[in-house]
Amino acid sequence: MLVVKVGGSAGIDLEAVCADVAEMVRAGAQVVLVHGGSQRTNEVATALGHPPRFVTSPSGYSSRRTDRATLEIFQMVYCGQINKGIVERLQRRGVNALGLAGVDGGLWRGPRKAALRVVEDGRPLILRDDYTGTVERVNAPLLHALLAAGYVPVLTPPALSYEGEAINVDGDRAAAATAVALAADTLVILSNVPGLLRDFPHEESLIVHLAPDELDEAMALTHGRMRPKLLGTRAALAGGVQRVILGDARHPRPVRHALAGHGTVVEER
Amino acid sequence: MLVVKVGGSAGIDLEAVCADVAEMVRAGAQVVLVHGGSQRTNEVATALGHPPRFVTSPSGYSSRRTDRATLEIFQMVYCGQINKGIVERLQRRGVNALGLAGVDGGLWRGPRKAALRVVEDGRPLILRDDYTGTVERVNAPLLHALLAAGYVPVLTPPALSYEGEAINVDGDRAAAATAVALAADTLVILSNVPGLLRDFPHEESLIVHLAPDELDEAMALTHGRMRPKLLGTRAALAGGVQRVILGDARHPRPVRHALAGHGTVVEER
Repeated sequence: MLVVKVGGSAGIDLEAVCADVAEMVRAGAQVVLVHGGSQRTNEVATALGHPPRFVTSPSGYSSRRTDRATLEIFQMVYCGQINKGIVERLQRRGVNALGLAGVDGGLWRGPRKAALRVVEDGRPLILRDDYTGTVERVNAPLLHALLAAGYVPVLTPPALSYEGEAINVDGDRAAAATAVALAADTLVILSNVPGLLRDFPHEESLIVHLAPDELDEAMALTHGRMRPKLLGTRAALAGGVQRVILGDARHPRPVRHALAGHGTVVEER
Repeated sequence: MLVVKVGGSAGIDLEAVCADVAEMVRAGAQVVLVHGGSQRTNEVATALGHPPRFVTSPSGYSSRRTDRATLEIFQMVYCGQINKGIVERLQRRGVNALGLAGVDGGLWRGPRKAALRVVEDGRPLILRDDYTGTVERVNAPLLHALLAAGYVPVLTPPALSYEGEAINVDGDRAAAATAVALAADTLVILSNVPGLLRDFPHEESLIVHLAPDELDEAMALTHGRMRPKLLGTRAALAGGVQRVILGDARHPRPVRHALAGHGTVVEER
């Protein structure tokens, strides 16, 4: 069992990802695909007159400000345009893809952050109208039933809070939780860089291998969007996934390229 | 088994529909919900600079012009905002709703109209870049499996063409095809009128009962969006559904109000 996460940043070719997954599925692989959509959400939110805002945590990490209006735009893009676009691309290639958001059937559940601590203009602030949270539980029986019936699940945030609200969750960590719940042997996380770079943005500084116990140290190197990927990596390995590969979504056969060992491979040597 | 279709026109209170369905489900009813989203699609399309266009068939019926850009906006609204909004409303009420579009798992399949004949400015025209079609096949095993596992399916266009393309299909007729495929005994079609009106828009001219063999005659009375509802009604009855009720979505308990016989009830006397 393989879980593939593909990000939603600029430069990612979903067509290539879908073609690659379709060939693998036709060859007998069991694949669950998880995707993002942040870049397109920024564009649509701006076009709809509700431009994206990002907030910074006290420890310096940036995340999307998800008020209710943002959440609805987020759902339009992630669950509507991108999710159904991927399903259609796979169906066109003869793969029986089925798209679900984390809210569907309580697929991804977890707590909503009732109070989000952020720093704005140097001052601490608590946001109480933000819809973000984390995934603690995965509805594995639903995914197993779909896989057994021959469907390829295509999964996307938002998740469902314990109170039944849609919440924005990090896609990398949701993919990790899914890989753990399905006892997947491999999690591939694709983005628009070749993997973890020792000296971002210099691609020749790619770290080709990391042992699980080197992850904390590597966390210090993280640039931008790599941090949640490393948190996802750590959670996946801690949960029993044998191998996590941070691969390059821009390759023409991105999933098989990563599985062949290209990117940052995180596993015991 | 009950299939409920709720339209996407102005004045429809999805909150009331979801509250009503949730109470019925908790009382043991098996319900499949099908929804539209046309009004909101018009708003979003306009905001995104691709305002809605409608085309007229040679026989005088109007439908949405669905070029590729429109299809993507349509998916954003139907599959993203509205579908997940309904799932969230039901989940918040303790109902394990699961949203699917017709493309997911090949839920609704049928032919795309390769050439759409329309009349523009009095002149006949053939559109070859339109993504519309009809539902001929329903993936009933998928719905039965979900229902048996306790999920409440929430379904929406687009459907999937035989070539694997997403296609805009009429929601009323898709709901009818679903009711037939599931051998539902009742199909409730809710919209923002009390039912079929003999003298539209005068609500006191409501036709409270129609026998199936009076449907063709009633078709002559149809106003605006009632025609697809009557076509759906006819298809459902021809396929073995015992009763179709055209009900008022604006009632505070719209589904149970319709099931109590309010609206236009179409069945053998």
